[in-house]
Amino acid sequence: MVVVMAPEATAENIAAVVDSVHAAGGQAFVSRGVSRTIVGLVGDVGDFEALNLGSLAGVLQVMRVSVPFKLVSRENHPARSVVRVGGVPIGPDTMSMIAGPCAVETPEQTLEAALMAKAAGASLLRGGAFKPRTSPYSYQGLGEAGLRILADVRAETGLPVVTEVIDPGSVEMVASYADMLQVGARNMQNFALLQAVGSAGKPVLLKRGFSATIEEWLSAAEYIAQRGNLDIVLCERGIRTFETATRNTLDISAVPVAQRLSHLPVIVDPSHSGGRRDLVLPLTRAAIAVGADGLIIDVHPQPKVALCDGDQALMDTDLKGIADIVSLLSPLMGRTLTMPIADRAAVAV
Amino acid sequence: MVVVMAPEATAENIAAVVDSVHAAGGQAFVSRGVSRTIVGLVGDVGDFEALNLGSLAGVLQVMRVSVPFKLVSRENHPARSVVRVGGVPIGPDTMSMIAGPCAVETPEQTLEAALMAKAAGASLLRGGAFKPRTSPYSYQGLGEAGLRILADVRAETGLPVVTEVIDPGSVEMVASYADMLQVGARNMQNFALLQAVGSAGKPVLLKRGFSATIEEWLSAAEYIAQRGNLDIVLCERGIRTFETATRNTLDISAVPVAQRLSHLPVIVDPSHSGGRRDLVLPLTRAAIAVGADGLIIDVHPQPKVALCDGDQALMDTDLKGIADIVSLLSPLMGRTLTMPIADRAAVAV
Amino acid sequence: MVVVMAPEATAENIAAVVDSVHAAGGQAFVSRGVSRTIVGLVGDVGDFEALNLGSLAGVLQVMRVSVPFKLVSRENHPARSVVRVGGVPIGPDTMSMIAGPCAVETPEQTLEAALMAKAAGASLLRGGAFKPRTSPYSYQGLGEAGLRILADVRAETGLPVVTEVIDPGSVEMVASYADMLQVGARNMQNFALLQAVGSAGKPVLLKRGFSATIEEWLSAAEYIAQRGNLDIVLCERGIRTFETATRNTLDISAVPVAQRLSHLPVIVDPSHSGGRRDLVLPLTRAAIAVGADGLIIDVHPQPKVALCDGDQALMDTDLKGIADIVSLLSPLMGRTLTMPIADRAAVAV
Amino acid sequence: MVVVMAPEATAENIAAVVDSVHAAGGQAFVSRGVSRTIVGLVGDVGDFEALNLGSLAGVLQVMRVSVPFKLVSRENHPARSVVRVGGVPIGPDTMSMIAGPCAVETPEQTLEAALMAKAAGASLLRGGAFKPRTSPYSYQGLGEAGLRILADVRAETGLPVVTEVIDPGSVEMVASYADMLQVGARNMQNFALLQAVGSAGKPVLLKRGFSATIEEWLSAAEYIAQRGNLDIVLCERGIRTFETATRNTLDISAVPVAQRLSHLPVIVDPSHSGGRRDLVLPLTRAAIAVGADGLIIDVHPQPKVALCDGDQALMDTDLKGIADIVSLLSPLMGRTLTMPIADRAAVAV
Repeated sequence: MVVVMAPEATAENIAAVVDSVHAAGGQAFVSRGVSRTIVGLVGDVGDFEALNLGSLAGVLQVMRVSVPFKLVSRENHPARSVVRVGGVPIGPDTMSMIAGPCAVETPEQTLEAALMAKAAGASLLRGGAFKPRTSPYSYQGLGEAGLRILADVRAETGLPVVTEVIDPGSVEMVASYADMLQVGARNMQNFALLQAVGSAGKPVLLKRGFSATIEEWLSAAEYIAQRGNLDIVLCERGIRTFETATRNTLDISAVPVAQRLSHLPVIVDPSHSGGRRDLVLPLTRAAIAVGADGLIIDVHPQPKVALCDGDQALMDTDLKGIADIVSLLSPLMGRTLTMPIADRAAVAV
Repeated sequence: MVVVMAPEATAENIAAVVDSVHAAGGQAFVSRGVSRTIVGLVGDVGDFEALNLGSLAGVLQVMRVSVPFKLVSRENHPARSVVRVGGVPIGPDTMSMIAGPCAVETPEQTLEAALMAKAAGASLLRGGAFKPRTSPYSYQGLGEAGLRILADVRAETGLPVVTEVIDPGSVEMVASYADMLQVGARNMQNFALLQAVGSAGKPVLLKRGFSATIEEWLSAAEYIAQRGNLDIVLCERGIRTFETATRNTLDISAVPVAQRLSHLPVIVDPSHSGGRRDLVLPLTRAAIAVGADGLIIDVHPQPKVALCDGDQALMDTDLKGIADIVSLLSPLMGRTLTMPIADRAAVAV
Repeated sequence: MVVVMAPEATAENIAAVVDSVHAAGGQAFVSRGVSRTIVGLVGDVGDFEALNLGSLAGVLQVMRVSVPFKLVSRENHPARSVVRVGGVPIGPDTMSMIAGPCAVETPEQTLEAALMAKAAGASLLRGGAFKPRTSPYSYQGLGEAGLRILADVRAETGLPVVTEVIDPGSVEMVASYADMLQVGARNMQNFALLQAVGSAGKPVLLKRGFSATIEEWLSAAEYIAQRGNLDIVLCERGIRTFETATRNTLDISAVPVAQRLSHLPVIVDPSHSGGRRDLVLPLTRAAIAVGADGLIIDVHPQPKVALCDGDQALMDTDLKGIADIVSLLSPLMGRTLTMPIADRAAVAV
Repeated sequence: MVVVMAPEATAENIAAVVDSVHAAGGQAFVSRGVSRTIVGLVGDVGDFEALNLGSLAGVLQVMRVSVPFKLVSRENHPARSVVRVGGVPIGPDTMSMIAGPCAVETPEQTLEAALMAKAAGASLLRGGAFKPRTSPYSYQGLGEAGLRILADVRAETGLPVVTEVIDPGSVEMVASYADMLQVGARNMQNFALLQAVGSAGKPVLLKRGFSATIEEWLSAAEYIAQRGNLDIVLCERGIRTFETATRNTLDISAVPVAQRLSHLPVIVDPSHSGGRRDLVLPLTRAAIAVGADGLIIDVHPQPKVALCDGDQALMDTDLKGIADIVSLLSPLMGRTLTMPIADRAAVAV
């Protein structure tokens, strides 16, 4: 059950709703969106109906939830949302590129990759310090030491940091370094993790599970939203099919479908979708043309020695093509390429 | 086993190879490509090796076939091919649009759809007279009467006709009306049909089976090529996955992957991929941007009363968007939009 | 639209229905089932309704078809059917095993495989003379010469012959040798072929397409039934999934699901499902236990030199296990193991 | 890298290995298996090789890990393992049934379901207190209150308790109530959770992710094993495919394939696989016949009012069929049906 507050509702009005729900033995999660505040209720629907919440001051509407997601749905929020990450907007009017190494390995490798990313037009830095790997014998990441490297590189380059968190117990620690928390494909239905990032006070990048339907993906986003965090960016990164020529099958249709069902921004990962360096450029073109709100791309100064997913990382020589195509196609799709913060400051002066 | 003839090989040289193979109890299929002639051998490899074909006059190379396709592979034919359909080129330098009704229903509906298609930039007319339908109780098409309608509309509009053939026994009859024979997704591994269209003397549009790997798709093309017909255009039209939001999942990566493995042109069907009218425009944009050599799109004057796949057919009002985007994006991808023959004639004058 | 005739309807009654339909420009297909005759109509439903067929003599019921299959559905025919192949029953009370080589190679290999099959409890012989292969460079079968070998081996062993047909044009020829016509997985939606085998006067083994839903499989059977042939046996042989440890994924649930939706017998192919010799025995056990009406198993005297699918063919030494388990489990499932005809004759004497 | 200790290795020998690894900056996880102790190393392989661990006392073998799993592989441990849960064995010689309600709702419902389960032959009780649900608006379980109910029902019935844990942070708490910790399909690659249950000192039931390959499933088990816990039971519960007639597709072949690759017991969940009550009995038969080491089945006194997955829960009237078939088929497969502990005690007296 969801309680939609009126635009003019006061903090006291909201608190009164929450208190009523608590008194009835339920749980209430307050989500403050761009245009209004929503209170999500978990518990016995019969008990909640007996409360007659619709009669409380400041309450606009009480909705029974029949679809598996509501707060993230476009039906209830027709305007497409803009999510800001360290000041960088991701939304319907911009093209924002996140780039960086799949895994943080050394300060030098990370800085070099960040500078490559920036030169290619990226305004956000990606890099993994905690790597969820299929085998326990694969490289697992540097942990907190990797986060410190990312923070140093952010200081040097001005690029806000997007990094993965894999355990509810370390969300707070990771959030203390990151500008955006990434939930990876394997954790898309790790509900404890979704709830933890929903409460962490940082924007979230939610990758689609490689065998999740679009409805399940949006339902996972709803878990985050229900904790009061609507700053969610969805990322299509390929689904698992019978085809073996590519690592995954980029579901390019998922971009317009998800944008129609949800007000959240949707970006595309052309690197993990195909798992092949030679596909990154054509899939980037397709992603921009289909209407994606952004891109997330693996780059590495020396892909051959990368500890993780080197086959798909772009090298310096590939990045000119990305930079060119992003500059060329974005304006045709009605979008402004987001520039790195530092450069924008310079421009502003 | 494949025998590659030297560029200067004479008809007699080729005949000598074929005769040797026949004498050894094998079958030989001659394929005359743009730059050279290839003889495909079927039968006992040991027997063929004993023939020492490499020593015959005009033979450049004798290859044992280890991959499932050879004549259509790019390895043996690095230049990407151009296939001409009623004079209209489909290949690396052009953007050619095939459009028309899923099923031919009446002369009026077909003509109206053809005029819509032409106005939207199509240079080729599609239309089904034989419809392979999952249920025997669904509309099965008009048969030869439908082909006559298509021929009449071609005469009126100047658009060459692409139409499906579903039975080896009717290939000759369909080929007498059509400019290009379409093999549908369900028949991609109907090898008797592939062999029949390979011998029919008309270009072939080979749709990817909805659960075929790219390797199986190219192997199916090889069946056609082995009969001496290299005028094959591949068409990606979506694969079957667990996702139910779309009818199929457009495998956009298949376009660059197939173009890398094969010299044949690859086009995209944004209508059947998604099965939803609202997805045709974004998927068309993605297809052009990823590098497709053409498009095939369903249009219908009154989709609501269409006897087949009305949910995905574009109406008059949608076509302006298609025309605009094709004109805008094609030149950026280094392609010239192919114009209808009649108009080109006019221009030429 | 389907017209169900009363049990007491005469040939004249049936002809009258057919004539009416023809007069209205439609097509009528008469199916004589065990308990009643059904006339399937293809054409304009509105025209048919105007005929008021329900008022004709001998007509029990006129049904509009809303699901994609009707004649093969259990809803209209609650009793499960028995299909007889050369006198051998396949149905709810028996366990019938079809075994033999994937491909007929030589008279010796075929006879030896048939004797192995018989010793293991098979009452029907399988063997392919026309092989639909993914690559044109794979072994394609002996053609009619292979059918003659099968006929000879039948004469020697008393085992009726099940063999694949891949082309509508050769159905009549293949039917002149075979006791049962097999439609392979790749041809499950080759509608021209389905219609041809529906008219051939021989029982049909319809393999499930490797990416066909159960509904599509039954709809394919309906194409055969609509031509008047209800002697159809369905065969589950594995579907295509992301799992690569097995060649296909045996959909064991499809057996009870198809038996609930259709009155047709359902058998299982444990050889092609897994594509691994070591899985044939456990999958055979699972198939019998789940309630399958029969089995089809690859055997070969020397799998290592088999021209087709040797990895999955059972050898002599494996067959004792199959014979034992079939004898043990079948009675527990309320089934009698079908014996070869010759032996039954001997028993009868 | 994995260090295999000799059978006669002492605690001091093991400690010496661990200390060496720590000194080199690596991590070492000791797994005490039935026949030998294994030390799993995580860190820089080059550094470890420099240690020359093979020369230390009590070390039998040092293996570089090339496949993604080792401790759970059968290659290194040919004998199939038996896992004991509250004294109940799950392994190659027994048939052990886990049954109970999908979700714990009330003390009465749970007790009633447990008594139903016991009467049907179950020796272990399942019941969910923490439910990972696709939508945050679905019933999420009673939490710790549910665990208390399970403990009470165990005291009353003598059935050890199997229950799901969904968050690394609550593993210790759940383990204080449960006899076996279940990791659900959605959490199969929640590596933080796998590591936490690996350290919890209780046997683990690891469900296969619904789109996980068998190799990924065994790799997930390796994460648990690496923390020193080899008491792992694998559970096949259906994979995601294109087929929609069933909720998931039971991959029956996965049972023999996983048993061949790993020494761990493998059980089957016929309830979640099909998601349909009418399929539970046939799939149970197939599971026993294919060689599964056990079953996990949903039962509910009143499925129509179940808060979770009522469509698939068996009712009292269905259970007689399960009890009969398990008693009939298990001995044929060389297995003794495991009896509930209390009853066995009685028998022992």
